[in-house]
Amino acid sequence: MTPDLREHERIDELGRKGFRIIQNAKTFCFGIDAVLLAEFVKAGPRDKVADLGSGNGILPLLLIGRDKGGAFAALEIQREMADLARRNMALNGLQDMVEVIEGDLKEASRLLGKNCFDQVVVNPPYIKSGSGLLNPGEAKAIARHEILCRLEDVLREGAALLKEGGSLFMVHRCWRMGEALAALESYGLKARRIRLVHSHGDGPGELFLLEAKKGKAEGCQVEPPCVIFEAPGLLSPELYKACHGREREDLLT
Amino acid sequence: MTPDLREHERIDELGRKGFRIIQNAKTFCFGIDAVLLAEFVKAGPRDKVADLGSGNGILPLLLIGRDKGGAFAALEIQREMADLARRNMALNGLQDMVEVIEGDLKEASRLLGKNCFDQVVVNPPYIKSGSGLLNPGEAKAIARHEILCRLEDVLREGAALLKEGGSLFMVHRCWRMGEALAALESYGLKARRIRLVHSHGDGPGELFLLEAKKGKAEGCQVEPPCVIFEAPGLLSPELYKACHGREREDLLT
Repeated sequence: MTPDLREHERIDELGRKGFRIIQNAKTFCFGIDAVLLAEFVKAGPRDKVADLGSGNGILPLLLIGRDKGGAFAALEIQREMADLARRNMALNGLQDMVEVIEGDLKEASRLLGKNCFDQVVVNPPYIKSGSGLLNPGEAKAIARHEILCRLEDVLREGAALLKEGGSLFMVHRCWRMGEALAALESYGLKARRIRLVHSHGDGPGELFLLEAKKGKAEGCQVEPPCVIFEAPGLLSPELYKACHGREREDLLT
Repeated sequence: MTPDLREHERIDELGRKGFRIIQNAKTFCFGIDAVLLAEFVKAGPRDKVADLGSGNGILPLLLIGRDKGGAFAALEIQREMADLARRNMALNGLQDMVEVIEGDLKEASRLLGKNCFDQVVVNPPYIKSGSGLLNPGEAKAIARHEILCRLEDVLREGAALLKEGGSLFMVHRCWRMGEALAALESYGLKARRIRLVHSHGDGPGELFLLEAKKGKAEGCQVEPPCVIFEAPGLLSPELYKACHGREREDLLT
């Protein structure tokens, strides 16, 4: 099926089960952070998953492409993005598995229901309100800056959505890791798994991947560092596979 | 000078300014965690530094060996260890620079003074009270298990000792990283720098190094991963240099 594309839209392959995604280059295209988060998530094939701030629906597509999650509620505040997410689910025949809801993350637990999700996944805006240059496009700005929701909103609503023992999975900038981990406890969450993402193996951490559990957690596991580039412009074997769904050509014998 | 050694004592070279340390193999010998912590610490040559739970005095020796810190208060609860720390300072002619105080970490700010240190360094017991096998030797058990002090005591007293804007430097097990970072805020500390230590580059994180600042901190920097072994039994170039004070032989041209 070739979908009708609107202005500035293109179709990208996701390297998973033949899934494709319509993206709008003028509003928002998914990045490596969404790919890394989807790889980091642990979810069973029947789990109920909420995606907070779903954008064009990239996370449900990547997760279902890895058999993670059985039923998704994808919340997106921007009407145009929610429409695009719905078209993306239809494009891949996933409209029965993923419900796209237009609504505000700050009211997620009222809109989607309290204590009923096994997992919450979220790739929130990284930049604190009032800092950084605002991105000219409004949709991009909302995706990147804490204009419509703050980290505290994400943690509060994430915790409220989860069943006891359920997990929130988040990717965020290292710069805000201390703040994020310090805030977890007041929402009844505990850090369970952390992975740091470095552009280069000998460079600083840029992003962190976090699994925080609602309720008790015995302790925190730190995973091997995730290195994006093995050399300038050359994706590491792990990242290549995550992005393209197959081994890097030079590693095939 | 050849010092008088007691039973089970030996002398080790520290690879810094000719410093040596007397260690007692039956009570406690310093490990790679102390070396990593000393390398991680940032301190000016005139700064006032408190070392909480100093053991045989390894941290002041390693720090002075790197020109970090100008005056040290080394607090140690075990009389035998405090005596050994004093002998170690004398052995290296550092008795005027490092005051060894016998006392309880839980009362550190009462014993050493509030709001007057530029840095606090601490390599606390890692194992939660009531978990893990107790080490047979009492001194070893006190160094490794939270028998005499808990993580909360370390953070509370560390924060109380520091001047506003001063930094607490700690090494701890990754397993307790979530707990540690969640607890900082209630003592007025903010995570400023984090580095994860992995035995192998593709293995899990084992230790974390933390700089937490008293008062305001803009954000958190995550440093490149610290890898101990490049191959089985072969220290990485960074660790070799930290442990031996010189480049690894095979890397010299």
